[in-house]
Amino acid sequence: MTIDIVTIFPDFFKPFVETSMIRKAREHGYVTIHLRDLRDYTKDRHRKVDDTPYGGGAGMVLTFQPLYDAIKALKGENSKVILLTPQGRLFDQRRATELSELEHIILISGHYEGFDARIEDYVDLELSIGNFVLTGGEIPAMALADAIIRLVPGVLHEESAATDSLQQGLLKYPQYTKPASYLGHDVPDVLLSGNHGLIDAWRKRKSVERTLEKRPDLLKDYVFDDPIVSLIEEVKKSCK
Amino acid sequence: MTIDIVTIFPDFFKPFVETSMIRKAREHGYVTIHLRDLRDYTKDRHRKVDDTPYGGGAGMVLTFQPLYDAIKALKGENSKVILLTPQGRLFDQRRATELSELEHIILISGHYEGFDARIEDYVDLELSIGNFVLTGGEIPAMALADAIIRLVPGVLHEESAATDSLQQGLLKYPQYTKPASYLGHDVPDVLLSGNHGLIDAWRKRKSVERTLEKRPDLLKDYVFDDPIVSLIEEVKKSCK
Repeated sequence: MTIDIVTIFPDFFKPFVETSMIRKAREHGYVTIHLRDLRDYTKDRHRKVDDTPYGGGAGMVLTFQPLYDAIKALKGENSKVILLTPQGRLFDQRRATELSELEHIILISGHYEGFDARIEDYVDLELSIGNFVLTGGEIPAMALADAIIRLVPGVLHEESAATDSLQQGLLKYPQYTKPASYLGHDVPDVLLSGNHGLIDAWRKRKSVERTLEKRPDLLKDYVFDDPIVSLIEEVKKSCK
Repeated sequence: MTIDIVTIFPDFFKPFVETSMIRKAREHGYVTIHLRDLRDYTKDRHRKVDDTPYGGGAGMVLTFQPLYDAIKALKGENSKVILLTPQGRLFDQRRATELSELEHIILISGHYEGFDARIEDYVDLELSIGNFVLTGGEIPAMALADAIIRLVPGVLHEESAATDSLQQGLLKYPQYTKPASYLGHDVPDVLLSGNHGLIDAWRKRKSVERTLEKRPDLLKDYVFDDPIVSLIEEVKKSCK
């Protein structure tokens, strides 16, 4: 997979591409990331890429020309051009899974007050990471790239991604590590039992309990298989 | 406002604190950001901060001790300790506004498979930025810090934050900047009219149209004032 990130702050992404999972995914050839400076595509002799909004208002707006030319230069036959914007559809784990199967993704980060709306005709998809406002699309572009790349086959141990929170529509069970007791806080006995059948059952139940307690909204959007549905019903009853 | 960010990758945040709005907010004294390396709080002689999960499973889990000691060392009387986790409540613009009024925020970024669940008893709030899974809490911590800091009075021009997407429960109107025509794409005439009454009315209507078209879910969660409610009804009718 190749990801092009178009931004006026390419250096913002340097530690992102050089840290932890993303660095390893790049080194092992699972993904190639190109940081593209929007200023390299402007025809303005002062490398300007923004201007004041027509009709008045605060702040600066990214101009159409460099955005348009960047897309034209980077887009190939199998490219998906994604604009990060608060008006986009909400990005979620299902979308991440879908995008992780693509060959080429172009992520366009806006900044300041946004971009000239004429660019919207040239993008394939508008995505938002949440109902909050950020200074630019850099952090959302990183979030998308991170969520997508970790699902590319080979990047993580398969088991690791499969038991993630949300991957199956539920929150993950609570995790514990050594020491078994610290300052009066003990690890649940079952995890020390060595009985894997019991541990699995406990984790499934905790996963359902946590979801019901902390994020009941998740249960509305997902179709669960029968054993999980029964477990959800059972936990609901026992909570009453 | 002071923000402490506890992480095993403090360098990940360097460009974030040194770029654009955040840099200016720091330079003008609106916010102080401390990057805290979790490894500075471990009692392990090899500076280890993670271990394998009890009960088996893939990956590593952040241990309880350094997280606990970091919170103990950093927390004061007016601190709010926030854990970034997929199981947290969804962060949104209302929460950003609320948090922007605080004196001291401590953001805890997990990494790898998560953290020892015993730490949950020592945090004030668990937040998630969305229903997707990331490699760590670094990107969410940046998203929170960015969304919060830009709302601190003085950081942005007041008008700028007030007309943001979502700040009033609606998406922002489309923006355009020079040139007025490019490759056959024209800026809407009204924006060139110089008539500010007409421009305001057009922008309000576009704001409602965009929200109905792209993010109708937003309209459910927000109480609008009367003129906006009438406009929403009117636009809905004209779309039929």
